[in-house]
Amino acid sequence: MSLIKVGLVGIGAQMQENLLPSLLQMPDIRIVAACDSDPARAKQIHRFISDIPTMDSVPAMLDAACLDAIVMACPPQVHREMSIRAMQRGVSVFVEKPPCATLDELQELVELARQCGVRTGVGMNFKFARPVRQLREMTTSEEFGRTLHIQLNHYANKPRTPLWGLDSTLRSFLLAQAIHTIDLAVTFGQGDLVDVQSRVQRHGDALIVKGEFTFSSGATASLLSGTTFPYFEFQMKLVSSSSTMVELDNLWNITVHEPEHGTRATGAAKRWRGAWQPGPLDSGYERSGYFGELYEFFDACRTRTRFEADFESLLPTYRIIEAICRADCATDADLDATAIRGMHALPSKGAGLERLSA
Amino acid sequence: MSLIKVGLVGIGAQMQENLLPSLLQMPDIRIVAACDSDPARAKQIHRFISDIPTMDSVPAMLDAACLDAIVMACPPQVHREMSIRAMQRGVSVFVEKPPCATLDELQELVELARQCGVRTGVGMNFKFARPVRQLREMTTSEEFGRTLHIQLNHYANKPRTPLWGLDSTLRSFLLAQAIHTIDLAVTFGQGDLVDVQSRVQRHGDALIVKGEFTFSSGATASLLSGTTFPYFEFQMKLVSSSSTMVELDNLWNITVHEPEHGTRATGAAKRWRGAWQPGPLDSGYERSGYFGELYEFFDACRTRTRFEADFESLLPTYRIIEAICRADCATDADLDATAIRGMHALPSKGAGLERLSA
Amino acid sequence: MSLIKVGLVGIGAQMQENLLPSLLQMPDIRIVAACDSDPARAKQIHRFISDIPTMDSVPAMLDAACLDAIVMACPPQVHREMSIRAMQRGVSVFVEKPPCATLDELQELVELARQCGVRTGVGMNFKFARPVRQLREMTTSEEFGRTLHIQLNHYANKPRTPLWGLDSTLRSFLLAQAIHTIDLAVTFGQGDLVDVQSRVQRHGDALIVKGEFTFSSGATASLLSGTTFPYFEFQMKLVSSSSTMVELDNLWNITVHEPEHGTRATGAAKRWRGAWQPGPLDSGYERSGYFGELYEFFDACRTRTRFEADFESLLPTYRIIEAICRADCATDADLDATAIRGMHALPSKGAGLERLSA
Amino acid sequence: MSLIKVGLVGIGAQMQENLLPSLLQMPDIRIVAACDSDPARAKQIHRFISDIPTMDSVPAMLDAACLDAIVMACPPQVHREMSIRAMQRGVSVFVEKPPCATLDELQELVELARQCGVRTGVGMNFKFARPVRQLREMTTSEEFGRTLHIQLNHYANKPRTPLWGLDSTLRSFLLAQAIHTIDLAVTFGQGDLVDVQSRVQRHGDALIVKGEFTFSSGATASLLSGTTFPYFEFQMKLVSSSSTMVELDNLWNITVHEPEHGTRATGAAKRWRGAWQPGPLDSGYERSGYFGELYEFFDACRTRTRFEADFESLLPTYRIIEAICRADCATDADLDATAIRGMHALPSKGAGLERLSA
Repeated sequence: MSLIKVGLVGIGAQMQENLLPSLLQMPDIRIVAACDSDPARAKQIHRFISDIPTMDSVPAMLDAACLDAIVMACPPQVHREMSIRAMQRGVSVFVEKPPCATLDELQELVELARQCGVRTGVGMNFKFARPVRQLREMTTSEEFGRTLHIQLNHYANKPRTPLWGLDSTLRSFLLAQAIHTIDLAVTFGQGDLVDVQSRVQRHGDALIVKGEFTFSSGATASLLSGTTFPYFEFQMKLVSSSSTMVELDNLWNITVHEPEHGTRATGAAKRWRGAWQPGPLDSGYERSGYFGELYEFFDACRTRTRFEADFESLLPTYRIIEAICRADCATDADLDATAIRGMHALPSKGAGLERLSA
Repeated sequence: MSLIKVGLVGIGAQMQENLLPSLLQMPDIRIVAACDSDPARAKQIHRFISDIPTMDSVPAMLDAACLDAIVMACPPQVHREMSIRAMQRGVSVFVEKPPCATLDELQELVELARQCGVRTGVGMNFKFARPVRQLREMTTSEEFGRTLHIQLNHYANKPRTPLWGLDSTLRSFLLAQAIHTIDLAVTFGQGDLVDVQSRVQRHGDALIVKGEFTFSSGATASLLSGTTFPYFEFQMKLVSSSSTMVELDNLWNITVHEPEHGTRATGAAKRWRGAWQPGPLDSGYERSGYFGELYEFFDACRTRTRFEADFESLLPTYRIIEAICRADCATDADLDATAIRGMHALPSKGAGLERLSA
Repeated sequence: MSLIKVGLVGIGAQMQENLLPSLLQMPDIRIVAACDSDPARAKQIHRFISDIPTMDSVPAMLDAACLDAIVMACPPQVHREMSIRAMQRGVSVFVEKPPCATLDELQELVELARQCGVRTGVGMNFKFARPVRQLREMTTSEEFGRTLHIQLNHYANKPRTPLWGLDSTLRSFLLAQAIHTIDLAVTFGQGDLVDVQSRVQRHGDALIVKGEFTFSSGATASLLSGTTFPYFEFQMKLVSSSSTMVELDNLWNITVHEPEHGTRATGAAKRWRGAWQPGPLDSGYERSGYFGELYEFFDACRTRTRFEADFESLLPTYRIIEAICRADCATDADLDATAIRGMHALPSKGAGLERLSA
Repeated sequence: MSLIKVGLVGIGAQMQENLLPSLLQMPDIRIVAACDSDPARAKQIHRFISDIPTMDSVPAMLDAACLDAIVMACPPQVHREMSIRAMQRGVSVFVEKPPCATLDELQELVELARQCGVRTGVGMNFKFARPVRQLREMTTSEEFGRTLHIQLNHYANKPRTPLWGLDSTLRSFLLAQAIHTIDLAVTFGQGDLVDVQSRVQRHGDALIVKGEFTFSSGATASLLSGTTFPYFEFQMKLVSSSSTMVELDNLWNITVHEPEHGTRATGAAKRWRGAWQPGPLDSGYERSGYFGELYEFFDACRTRTRFEADFESLLPTYRIIEAICRADCATDADLDATAIRGMHALPSKGAGLERLSA
């Protein structure tokens, strides 16, 4: 299986702008079929690849083409349903995030993947972004020491209403946006998830979501996110046991603050830091992680090893999402009870404490 | 009392480097005496001002000179004790932070100041720093809307052992360092303090302190601080109901992210932001707040009005400090109990929840 | 000719990393043949596109395939020679920079293209980079006013020896690197080139190249470039008659300084500026200009209009390159003469003045 | 003369905002008299220092007080005239820039200072600014190597009309603003000034001034300055023979680009650089150089050694200023001549070449 035959599902913007371009320049991959519930959109594939068949359903595509893997960019319900279909036929599955709407659904998908012996993958591109990889490598060095705390700020301005037919804007936001940063918390936090605390503030239909996650490694991670912000941006900070603090700004710039730093000409001195930027002509899909996530997924398919961002890897992320949603509901209930006692002035949505290790 | 006669107490580094230079260039102030328990250090004042008497005790200075106010830069025990002496003699008091070690002590000072009818002040220079003032003005504008959340990161690398004879490194750190950022949380949070949650992590003798504070205005503030960092730096972010996000970096640079921004030549467009920097030759003690804090204190003395950073203004700040210390102790107790049950692997110092509105 | 049939020439790093990925995701383009003097490298195309023929010479490819255009990434001698072959057969030509080694050669190519009625293009990707396009649009606005001066800093660390069999490291550097920034000077300078002054300093085998170019619009442009720098970076500044100064840093960040600027919440105030950054997930080949240059070239092929970066557009750029080389030689001659008179201490390579309008 | 007795001349904004505050906190200096042609302004000194006499003329002050030095912040004509008076009486002289209006005048002052055996000083605060000192130290290190080129950008928006009764806006601008950056060119260029080329563009009453200066060390310096910019800012870059490039932004931030750089946790890697910022609470007059210039001047007075920024040190700076003015006049003449020959379209003020070593 050195040449992998791939079917595409969902030929919308994310497929055309990020996944397809990455696939087109990936060696030893052949896109052999494309599928979209809208036949006209399916045919848009012909602007990029001539002479491949297009279908309007995944089962039809699975029947017609001999596929090693499918790559999907659809709503989570479709991801879930069609992943099941594909896995049952022994076809490996890569889906854009989110793969499904709930932890229960994810656990079913994980179990089925295990039974079917297929590779699975989710488009967690942040994790594979080049500067994040640099940080991951840095955090394994002896000089960096142990990661003690991760601060994640993920600014967004949508969704302000529920997505995908879900009834919760909060869950929609967590699955559509914060899933990336929660996954980074899990990635850098290391060890098992021990504790989740969270708090959701609402202003009109906009959210501010804050969380604090504790891992068995001793590391903690805090999240500031929500939809109250003017536009999407992202910042991460790591603090280590060697008093090193690393900042990542927007998948562009890395700054390393360490107790002693300098240059050849100055020697180590106070208030010097190391800074990294991508080159001026840095192009393509590696910096943002779209290339890397697909490259490693197909490598896992070839070598029949586990892909780092498979369905199973997202279990702690979904546990956190469920905990945040549950705490928010509990607080709503508290507020109702409280309102009866006349404390309707309490403006915050309150604190949710979820101890998972109990 | 247009010309205010001032006595200085504690002629150490903070006095010589920040307070004294600000006083020397402040109009209509006369430094008429200086006092230090070390007579040689007291006499260092003569390098700046000739022919003023020096003493080695505050009572002696109060006896010898006819003072309107004293300015002190000493340990908190001295601040407290000598503030009492001065206030009892009707002399107004400005002290470097911290004014005292506990909330109880602060309450006594507040009560005494009220009885004596004197002005009090604490050197909360962050609050008076020029870029912070710009932010405070900005947050009062209709266009900014209501402040929803404040994120405060205050990086430090000391103290690693208790200061001033206290028995707690945590309390020493909070009083010596985090007091500034907690005070900013109170300043921008507005309204009464409703809730404090906090968590302290330890790595060797270094701390990571995290807190989340809720105010009756509905605003929340989060704090990431501690002594695990490589050197002192400071960052603040504000998010408002108009989806404006303001960042202050190190009392130097302000960045305003708003949904629509642009320039005359571009018009409003995506991903534009407004940025402010001080001028290249920006000099003196106004940017860092040392001039402003003293200027306004003496103005309050002249006009017999309340000074914004008086002892009383610090009550919510001390409530937060007490809550963080108490929660940390409670967690220690929990940990001891837990250890008996065998969970000695739990690395974090855990979560403390303190509901002040109860 | 809505679907354009393209042959690739030179399947090396630049083709595989930037041009090919851009072509693969470009609608309505078909790559139908690939050619490289190294047959094994030609066959590397099959990792991306199966079943297209590969050749080891351009004439063979022109014979075998019915091509609308070729895209070349080769040394300038090959660009020149094979452009002639292709143009003579009515095939349009897009070449990486540089298209040839001298102004005389370029003039021949321009003339031939005119005779053959084909489209030509050169890979001046800086000109098509998204932030440069933003600047170009900005400079056309009435509010920006007239561009008065352009400062271009282009830092490089190679070549340190002549490329492509040329005998001049200086010419090699200008053709391989500075061509981009000189082209931007011409682009933003507007009008005809009136005057070139330049100076080359040498330190060992490293160069510092400085130039000042005057245009009939009244605008001037200055260039600081060379191979003495630690790594490649790029910065551009524009000053306009409305006292607006725009900075572009490395094709990433734009900063606009204007006399009055502010935000909704602050109003216009001193020392505010507007800043733009690409989004965190900005991916692909549009920001760096590789997509845009090819997209517009093929659009010109379809519409039979002039492509903005065609061979002819580079005439002023080559005039500047020739003037810099000629002035440097003249200075060398002067220095020799001078040395006889004993001024061997003069360290700089001196000043060359070239008045083109004479 | 361990305690230096100082008389102040010109109690305007620059004196009150920068010089006086620096003097007030300078050890072992006594301000014993103040003088201003406006008696009311002279008396403003009493808001800072009580009980010192005020005068309305320097001769009166020299008669009345026994002075070691005077510090002046006046127009250049007054600086020149009163420096002569003071020096003739053996009093050392520190003046704000500019000390006088022409090179001839400066040469007379230099000669007189030599005859009188007094110390002289000019307020070249950029040279003494803390980050510039860091750069100066850096450039002396073996690792930095030899400085090859200095790029100086000095943005200003005034003066737009002649100052101090001069008849040239250009000369006024050079003496009031660009003098600082030209002095930095001389400071970092090292060795004797060998060559000056310059060009002045005009747009309405606003200037763009460009210059290229060559030094006997082999270093060159380029200047971009003028009054067409929106507000005052300053940037300097240095390139060295070790391929190190240092940037100074606005007397705040230093960035060092070197071929190999990294952090403890990353090791040396591509595109890392070292960056330095002042601390968040950096206060006072040292960063901007006002303290350092005066401190070192008085130290030179005490030790009877040469002060680094004495009148004589400014001779090359004034030579450059004269060359720029002369070239601009010559070009005007050329233009007139040229206009007769019909080349009235030439928009630039042209090029002036001034070879000083001839």
